[in-house]
Amino acid sequence: MILAKVYIQPKTTVKDPQGNTIKSGLQDLGFTDVEKVNMGKYLEIKLNTQNKKLASEQIKKMCDQMLTNPLIEDYNFVIEKI
Amino acid sequence: MILAKVYIQPKTTVKDPQGNTIKSGLQDLGFTDVEKVNMGKYLEIKLNTQNKKLASEQIKKMCDQMLTNPLIEDYNFVIEKI
Repeated sequence: MILAKVYIQPKTTVKDPQGNTIKSGLQDLGFTDVEKVNMGKYLEIKLNTQNKKLASEQIKKMCDQMLTNPLIEDYNFVIEKI
Repeated sequence: MILAKVYIQPKTTVKDPQGNTIKSGLQDLGFTDVEKVNMGKYLEIKLNTQNKKLASEQIKKMCDQMLTNPLIEDYNFVIEKI
């Protein structure tokens, strides 16, 4: 079995309203050290295969076809055997 | 400056409808190796401090007070100097 950990984030050139709202909320709670917040997605995908190379290719395709919006999001992932 | 990477995930005992929907979607696209998908959140928080210990305490408080719902979510984070 393969576990892929996928991190998806808004591109740095794109406004991140969720992140900004969280930043304001944290500052209102007294966390005045907060400089910037980026809000992204974190997916764990279990794949029924042993082949890390194949899994890596599949995860890349999944990200490009469905999991991310390439216009506004960047992604990266790590693959590990479990 | 400190960068905290915060990973928030539904507890394993809690249903994850988003994850299940993504799993079905991926399988419909032909990724039949997909066994399980967990959908979580990924936050990057920049803190205006140099003190890693203090930053770590602050991030823990932020997670407990605002960023996560302790009834249904687990979190972990890493702290690094940037």
